[in-house]
Amino acid sequence: MSNTWGSHLHLSIFGESHGNGIGMVLDGIEPGTRLDLEKVAAQMKRRAPGGALATARKEADEIEWVSGIRDGKTIASPIMGLIRNTNQRSSDYQSVLDWPRPSHADYTAYIKYNGHSDLSGGGHFSGRLTAPLVAAGEICRQAMEQHFSVSVGSHLLQLAEYHEASWNIPQASILDQCRQAEIPCDDPDRVRELILKAKEEGDSVGGIVETAICGIPAGLGDPFFDSLESRIAHLLFSVPAVKGVGFGAAGDFASMKGSEANDAFALEHGRIVTTTNHNGGIEGGISNGMPIVFRSVIKPTASIFRPQTSLNLKTMESETRTIQGRHDPCIVLRAIPVLEAVSMIALYDALLADPFVFARLNDKKEE
Amino acid sequence: MSNTWGSHLHLSIFGESHGNGIGMVLDGIEPGTRLDLEKVAAQMKRRAPGGALATARKEADEIEWVSGIRDGKTIASPIMGLIRNTNQRSSDYQSVLDWPRPSHADYTAYIKYNGHSDLSGGGHFSGRLTAPLVAAGEICRQAMEQHFSVSVGSHLLQLAEYHEASWNIPQASILDQCRQAEIPCDDPDRVRELILKAKEEGDSVGGIVETAICGIPAGLGDPFFDSLESRIAHLLFSVPAVKGVGFGAAGDFASMKGSEANDAFALEHGRIVTTTNHNGGIEGGISNGMPIVFRSVIKPTASIFRPQTSLNLKTMESETRTIQGRHDPCIVLRAIPVLEAVSMIALYDALLADPFVFARLNDKKEE
Amino acid sequence: MSNTWGSHLHLSIFGESHGNGIGMVLDGIEPGTRLDLEKVAAQMKRRAPGGALATARKEADEIEWVSGIRDGKTIASPIMGLIRNTNQRSSDYQSVLDWPRPSHADYTAYIKYNGHSDLSGGGHFSGRLTAPLVAAGEICRQAMEQHFSVSVGSHLLQLAEYHEASWNIPQASILDQCRQAEIPCDDPDRVRELILKAKEEGDSVGGIVETAICGIPAGLGDPFFDSLESRIAHLLFSVPAVKGVGFGAAGDFASMKGSEANDAFALEHGRIVTTTNHNGGIEGGISNGMPIVFRSVIKPTASIFRPQTSLNLKTMESETRTIQGRHDPCIVLRAIPVLEAVSMIALYDALLADPFVFARLNDKKEE
Amino acid sequence: MSNTWGSHLHLSIFGESHGNGIGMVLDGIEPGTRLDLEKVAAQMKRRAPGGALATARKEADEIEWVSGIRDGKTIASPIMGLIRNTNQRSSDYQSVLDWPRPSHADYTAYIKYNGHSDLSGGGHFSGRLTAPLVAAGEICRQAMEQHFSVSVGSHLLQLAEYHEASWNIPQASILDQCRQAEIPCDDPDRVRELILKAKEEGDSVGGIVETAICGIPAGLGDPFFDSLESRIAHLLFSVPAVKGVGFGAAGDFASMKGSEANDAFALEHGRIVTTTNHNGGIEGGISNGMPIVFRSVIKPTASIFRPQTSLNLKTMESETRTIQGRHDPCIVLRAIPVLEAVSMIALYDALLADPFVFARLNDKKEE
Repeated sequence: MSNTWGSHLHLSIFGESHGNGIGMVLDGIEPGTRLDLEKVAAQMKRRAPGGALATARKEADEIEWVSGIRDGKTIASPIMGLIRNTNQRSSDYQSVLDWPRPSHADYTAYIKYNGHSDLSGGGHFSGRLTAPLVAAGEICRQAMEQHFSVSVGSHLLQLAEYHEASWNIPQASILDQCRQAEIPCDDPDRVRELILKAKEEGDSVGGIVETAICGIPAGLGDPFFDSLESRIAHLLFSVPAVKGVGFGAAGDFASMKGSEANDAFALEHGRIVTTTNHNGGIEGGISNGMPIVFRSVIKPTASIFRPQTSLNLKTMESETRTIQGRHDPCIVLRAIPVLEAVSMIALYDALLADPFVFARLNDKKEE
Repeated sequence: MSNTWGSHLHLSIFGESHGNGIGMVLDGIEPGTRLDLEKVAAQMKRRAPGGALATARKEADEIEWVSGIRDGKTIASPIMGLIRNTNQRSSDYQSVLDWPRPSHADYTAYIKYNGHSDLSGGGHFSGRLTAPLVAAGEICRQAMEQHFSVSVGSHLLQLAEYHEASWNIPQASILDQCRQAEIPCDDPDRVRELILKAKEEGDSVGGIVETAICGIPAGLGDPFFDSLESRIAHLLFSVPAVKGVGFGAAGDFASMKGSEANDAFALEHGRIVTTTNHNGGIEGGISNGMPIVFRSVIKPTASIFRPQTSLNLKTMESETRTIQGRHDPCIVLRAIPVLEAVSMIALYDALLADPFVFARLNDKKEE
Repeated sequence: MSNTWGSHLHLSIFGESHGNGIGMVLDGIEPGTRLDLEKVAAQMKRRAPGGALATARKEADEIEWVSGIRDGKTIASPIMGLIRNTNQRSSDYQSVLDWPRPSHADYTAYIKYNGHSDLSGGGHFSGRLTAPLVAAGEICRQAMEQHFSVSVGSHLLQLAEYHEASWNIPQASILDQCRQAEIPCDDPDRVRELILKAKEEGDSVGGIVETAICGIPAGLGDPFFDSLESRIAHLLFSVPAVKGVGFGAAGDFASMKGSEANDAFALEHGRIVTTTNHNGGIEGGISNGMPIVFRSVIKPTASIFRPQTSLNLKTMESETRTIQGRHDPCIVLRAIPVLEAVSMIALYDALLADPFVFARLNDKKEE
Repeated sequence: MSNTWGSHLHLSIFGESHGNGIGMVLDGIEPGTRLDLEKVAAQMKRRAPGGALATARKEADEIEWVSGIRDGKTIASPIMGLIRNTNQRSSDYQSVLDWPRPSHADYTAYIKYNGHSDLSGGGHFSGRLTAPLVAAGEICRQAMEQHFSVSVGSHLLQLAEYHEASWNIPQASILDQCRQAEIPCDDPDRVRELILKAKEEGDSVGGIVETAICGIPAGLGDPFFDSLESRIAHLLFSVPAVKGVGFGAAGDFASMKGSEANDAFALEHGRIVTTTNHNGGIEGGISNGMPIVFRSVIKPTASIFRPQTSLNLKTMESETRTIQGRHDPCIVLRAIPVLEAVSMIALYDALLADPFVFARLNDKKEE
């Protein structure tokens, strides 16, 4: 599959960091879906570089809608969105081929593609490729909103030494607040401080993001092999720097007994709920109507400004170098809109992949 | 996709816990691959029920090879393996429909399939469906061995209060030992004790398994959307009870600085390696030739023998009941061969999905 | 893809002519669909060997429903149907490897699988593998009937020197009659005579079948790349011996002017129709509500009882031999239920692949 | 699947006739493939409108290579090619919604997309969408040429009253000549005359094209469900106006006996061949090393300049109108490069879909 994804929806992305442009083709969105393209732009802005906490590379990340949309509505044909690259500085990256950067894709891409890839700026591996994902995700969210209300938001569970507690059962209103916040956590000043300290040291930090989605109806997903966890995790793990994914209580399950971990069903205001949400809204691979909750581990940015050792692949000698260029001391905050976006893509795809569930939801809507 | 998986290889599974049988169709294995079917049986035995630590349900789990194999070799057509169900006790499960068991698929299956599923014994959601996965995984491992040597093994990082350290860079010999062990960890007695204690209390415990694979060449996987992490995690998250997956340092990345987390390239005995393996053998979504290392969080078995509250879906009243039947106080140990198996499936599929890399590996082999 | 097919539905087939059995896994049928398994058996009987016009090989072709069905209804999990092979005579086919039979798959399978296939009785290439397709097709037809009435039937456009006219706009009642007939054409005696003459001569004959389907609603299919023609033709061309497929006027279009070929829209009894049906019910790759009409060219059976020349692949010498075994002098009649079946599979898949159209049809049904 | 196609290769197309642009994303081409982009442009020119025999719409059809190519070589990331629309005249098409044009997609698109498509100029259904297919096909041909030499060419079997004989076993040199010819047939003057006569009458004509491909090695394709015929036909039937596809003798098989139709194996200059090629280079769904030969039936252009009757969908009254706009009296000649192109896409995909065959071919090449 590679650059195309989806069992009903089809999303293809293309482009390289320092090529002519990047973008996506998104096929399968419900015809006649009204799109608020300013909200799409707002999401892309959350991810875009800029500000004291991020890379100095400036990219407006303006998207041209080449096809599939007319007068603010989808017209059944695939949506193509194109983002031109305006600010390439490929000389920063000349050392890629003979000195593969530690913990980057330089070496693996070199081996896989037999030397035939263009890795300047990370090439097709660049985090920049997540910009079209954010656009696609917000379109999917809006498409779901034709059928039910969907709120998504994230907060920091951890960033370096900073920790906070899991949500378990968040309210939609908190998700909306977090989606507006620059640093969605209880103590943003502390987090800013930790990031700036890493920046000062020429180092980087990672973290764990908890994302939640309210409004997803019960019945999406499958037992084998397309559990809702599988679908969401598949896309999360294609986001650069994501190295761990857990649902609900995630790793905390290992310390719980069954009697503590099980979520009891109950009736609340006439609605079937579980009184706890350790399963993160997913049981047997299928959504149960509770908030979908998942955690993503983001590793510290691989590009740091300290001397590092790697192997010169031409001479096969070890060499110590210090990377140049513009890099984020912490990619966690910019990753958040991407994590949220890909979960929207996964969920909308899961919705469309089950025509029987979709038809019943559609029926209900019209009542 | 659902019950079929794979971008090159195609694996379909079928069956219900209390139906006539379960099994799998595996299509795409290299023609002429010599199979050691006793080794396949040995892996299935690791997963099979029985023993003081597991459910009392007895199933021989003998597989009939209906097609695709002749004289111990694959013959290009799909491999069909059929396992008859011999030991159904469906009366144990009669309460499924009116009292959805907490943290099971009862409720979500009911909603998704509009009441039209057969959930006795878990139906198609049963852990029993992982038996054919184990067979498929061992076949994939043997198929890879035609091209390079593959060792896989797992140990417990955590089980209830028990913890041990991560492997980082394991040797193949340790993996082989773990694959033979009943309880692969440093202190099996302590773990046995914890499981038996849970059993006694009518409760259950979960854990974290670390699996490693030695021998996978560099170059498997993709950046978007089929990173090697995505491919492996997709299958892991379709295994019942898996609620978290991490690669390499996984959640520990959140506490590391970039300068600690980055894996430096070096030359060792003429081979390009990294001196640490925090990335778990995968960079930019592609294998780098180091051991593939991942962690799977297994939640405590949902079936416990204590009174629990759920909702009678007919009366919409809360009811407190105690589940009957035969269940494992801890599914972690029986899950291990399944986790190993699905990683083999994911890796062989990734290998075949890149004909260019496959052809180069094939060339080398013949030199 | 290979032995698995479908964009929403998933159908896998397995087995070899002279192995332990053949069968299929069919995943994605609407849960709770009531199945008339006797009608499935009746369709399989149409295809089964036997009778003066067909091969002397006797196979009861009884299918065991291993999973996915309970009390005559689908239960959401994949349907597995297994047919045991009872009447193998592999000694008939010993010459396969050193003398590839003309116009068979012997040579191409040998090259593709590097000698590692088992071709006795045609192996996985055998027409016998179409038996599970017939079962799958009838299940799909019954599944569609939950939503709208579907009639399918075929007649001979040509068989050797025999010709008859195209249907253009057939009535459902004619289709039902044809589906009952042993030789569905205007002059069955003439056709029987032609087949028996070929048999007597140790030769074989081919033909052209026209199939029509009444009841398919407008809106199924896509422009690129899954036109309804693409979907149906894809499956038809996987049926052994099919070498041509055309829709509506098919090859006759080449002799028509646009002014003759265009189908005019009109209102008939309050329903939008076209007054002619040269497009065979499909415009722009999408069904228009008129009968779907297509032609399949079936080549003369490759197995004939006359001396033929082929190449001994060991000696690389030409050799003249006469094939032994049990073969049909004409496969056209036995192919008909297969052609009908795969069209049902393609159409049901196309229906489920568009959740928006499906939901609207579902709405209408419930009014 | 819809706008994305391929089992290994992935091709997505996007755009509408009168939108901002059209194009394609092609993913999976071998990294490091040297591309002759002028040859790509030359193929696109064959398809482009212009000349006395075609529509008066002028489109330069210049493609911008946005990603995936650098310095004339592929760099492993997806190839995106964008063609801007420069010559829209949407007022020509205003009548689409209330008067669906006979034998067009107007009505079916209206029903399928519930009125939410933009059909001006045919929208996404326009023949214009085949321009990126031609580019993709020529890239695939060049990619195959890294491994073996591939010639493709076509001639007219029929155009209105004009007929000529089938090729059976063409030479590569003839294919090359045909690929250069404006009207590839024995009597181009006669064909030109027939087309101009139809144009004069405001009418249109159809035809049958025979395409052949030399150089494809044995071993590509599968028995079920991805026979080489299925793969090629799937793409051919997504080309607008294609209503029939046959391989080798195609419809002529119906008049042949087995003893006439069977292709005998023989040795010729040390190469295994068949002495006739009625199977069109494909046996059992797999290429046999002989030229791949297929026929495509192209229906007469639906847009004619004569009064036609259709139904006003608002008033449900019949109305007689005469279509305005710029249309081809015969689309057969412009379709030829498209038919050739999609066959290249299907074959390259089939090659990459079998890593075992690919690796063996690769081995041979390097000897």
